[in-house]
Amino acid sequence: MFMQFEILKSDKNSSARLGKCHTAHGVFHTPAFMAVGTQGTVKALTPEDLREMGAEIILSNTYHLYLRPGHERIRQLGGLHRFMHWDYPLLTDSGGFQVFSLNSLVKISEEGVEFQSHLDGSRHGITPEKAVEIQEALGADIIMCLDECTPYPAGHEEAERSMELTLNWSRRCRDSRRRLDQALFGIVQGGMYPDLRKRCVEALREMGFDGYAIGGVSVGESKEKMVEVVSQTVPLLPSDQLRYLMGVGTPFDIVQAVQQGVDMFDCVLPTRNARNGMLFTKRGRLVIKNARYADDDSPVEPGCSCYTCRNYSRAYLRHLYLAEEILAMRLNTVHNHGRDPPGHGRRPVERMGQNLLCSGGFGTGRRKRTRATGPLGGFFPQKAGREEKSGAGENCVYEMILSKRPLPLERES
Amino acid sequence: MFMQFEILKSDKNSSARLGKCHTAHGVFHTPAFMAVGTQGTVKALTPEDLREMGAEIILSNTYHLYLRPGHERIRQLGGLHRFMHWDYPLLTDSGGFQVFSLNSLVKISEEGVEFQSHLDGSRHGITPEKAVEIQEALGADIIMCLDECTPYPAGHEEAERSMELTLNWSRRCRDSRRRLDQALFGIVQGGMYPDLRKRCVEALREMGFDGYAIGGVSVGESKEKMVEVVSQTVPLLPSDQLRYLMGVGTPFDIVQAVQQGVDMFDCVLPTRNARNGMLFTKRGRLVIKNARYADDDSPVEPGCSCYTCRNYSRAYLRHLYLAEEILAMRLNTVHNHGRDPPGHGRRPVERMGQNLLCSGGFGTGRRKRTRATGPLGGFFPQKAGREEKSGAGENCVYEMILSKRPLPLERES
Repeated sequence: MFMQFEILKSDKNSSARLGKCHTAHGVFHTPAFMAVGTQGTVKALTPEDLREMGAEIILSNTYHLYLRPGHERIRQLGGLHRFMHWDYPLLTDSGGFQVFSLNSLVKISEEGVEFQSHLDGSRHGITPEKAVEIQEALGADIIMCLDECTPYPAGHEEAERSMELTLNWSRRCRDSRRRLDQALFGIVQGGMYPDLRKRCVEALREMGFDGYAIGGVSVGESKEKMVEVVSQTVPLLPSDQLRYLMGVGTPFDIVQAVQQGVDMFDCVLPTRNARNGMLFTKRGRLVIKNARYADDDSPVEPGCSCYTCRNYSRAYLRHLYLAEEILAMRLNTVHNHGRDPPGHGRRPVERMGQNLLCSGGFGTGRRKRTRATGPLGGFFPQKAGREEKSGAGENCVYEMILSKRPLPLERES
Repeated sequence: MFMQFEILKSDKNSSARLGKCHTAHGVFHTPAFMAVGTQGTVKALTPEDLREMGAEIILSNTYHLYLRPGHERIRQLGGLHRFMHWDYPLLTDSGGFQVFSLNSLVKISEEGVEFQSHLDGSRHGITPEKAVEIQEALGADIIMCLDECTPYPAGHEEAERSMELTLNWSRRCRDSRRRLDQALFGIVQGGMYPDLRKRCVEALREMGFDGYAIGGVSVGESKEKMVEVVSQTVPLLPSDQLRYLMGVGTPFDIVQAVQQGVDMFDCVLPTRNARNGMLFTKRGRLVIKNARYADDDSPVEPGCSCYTCRNYSRAYLRHLYLAEEILAMRLNTVHNHGRDPPGHGRRPVERMGQNLLCSGGFGTGRRKRTRATGPLGGFFPQKAGREEKSGAGENCVYEMILSKRPLPLERES
């Protein structure tokens, strides 16, 4: 296996760690937040934009690329890296999650999943072997096992059956891989049941994977439930391998999970919100279309070093958004996703913390540094888990990130 | 008046000339093709993109900015240059053309025009004085007199009345201006009637403007008619001042007009076509969605030095277009609009010719250079005026540029 993961520092006061991962397409540092490039492009951005914004690894969706333009086509064209002009670390998911979430008529069997294309209604089947074959054709540096994302809520029996299916599929994925320059991650399922999560981890570890993901969270459960699952699962995973919390999430979620020892994240939140005109700042959400910004000459966030904040006013961004200009989506995405262009003079440790925290706007590195208590400085608040009062589901996630309720240590008033 | 125009070279075999214009926001070279930034942004591009593509001057539409976000607001925010982060030469039109073309209920009087906003139906009036006031608030380096774009066809009497109105308005524009750091251009009208055009030029010259535009062409007349009007009008204009052919056009039109001594152009053609997936190449139009490009690993135009051609395949661009990705519009625009990033090693003379010709894809500078016969080299074909067979109107313009019927000297087969 080509990938090498090394831990650079561990926090004294939490399970947080800083790491560095070497892949066939270069290095990425952890904790890493991956921008989502669903159809082989992070919407509105070029790879050069992403690099300038500090992105080291991005994610692309196997389901979408399988349907269009097709994995065989991408393989013929030199693989996904070359196709999309991203010559850096890249991860593809297995496609399973989209099969379930974008299709109403899905047939699951021991063999695999059958579904209809959301594009043209054509019928397709994906088996574990097929999921690996597709991902080997795409050629990402990290690929994922096909899993069943256990629905929420699910009874113990249903969650167990689902978890066993994931284990069966994981084994078949492992056995069918042919490319050894890619890392293959197993995905931990088991619903909200600690015993099932534990059994799943043990079985996956016995099979042996290059890294481990936690799946089946952020599916409608409460924040406490998610924290519980993550905090129970992470300690069971090998400490010297990458840990990836799939589809998470809000800055709040990310900071908590980093404290628990998670290394990798992905979420459409910063990019999708940007396109909807919702911008992250350390003081809270900023809905750019609001009339109050019509004459506002200040940047989205004073002091922010991103390209957008360096060059454009809220008034201009509001104008672009109301005029439905393409540039609005691009400039908003640049702000929401990244803040720390190379050469900005901060040390890597700070940059990583900053990137993470600022992806959701929980304040600046400088401010946090004054509260440093361990090797990770004050980047990761020591207390977390404060109950989020809003309801469950996506809206809750959105509301939370946008209302920017600060973590206890960051309360400004 | 701040603006200074100098002619660097004149062609021996035609009226073509190379020039350099100094403005309060720097220099632009002529012949110049201005990308259209309708609402204070060239769609999908940042100013940095535009500069990298070789753009030295761009155009923005007064009508749109007046309605949204409002010229007073832009003035308060430091002017249009600052608002849109374009610190280089900038031209605004008077708004008159959009008043006529975007509104069905326009009331024209000696006083000015009344119209309804295409955004919300609100009623507005623009007088010559108001047109100048708005453009002074926006603060472009070159502003335009309010004119009436004479419809086509128009009888001699109608065209004469219209031309007299334009003259009246032009005088009022000249008399109402307060900012002397902006250049004010007069616009020649007169329909398709040489005597009216001549009278119009004479009257405008007597009033005295900083440059002269030819309006009322590309409004449905035949190509021959347009060539006729331009070739009859240009010699009447002062040779030491800028000449601007408004709303033109296709590469064919541009090359012909340059030969006749025109210095400036603007058109939405390259940018709008790009967003519609129609790409310019020297061999003809390339409709990127076509199935034949699905597996095509080559760039849009082999040898093209634009960012898009350097980094992406036709197959990828086709995928982005079919997937309706924002990046498709951006990458296509980059290709269609500009080809010659700074530092590409060509001399200014070549670059200008190249930029012009390549905006429509009539071949490379190198190929043309072998046919050089004058100081402008072979950039401008010596014979032109070959009849375009397609019908009149916008579709004709589109078809012509896209079918890329070569000029006589450039015929490849």
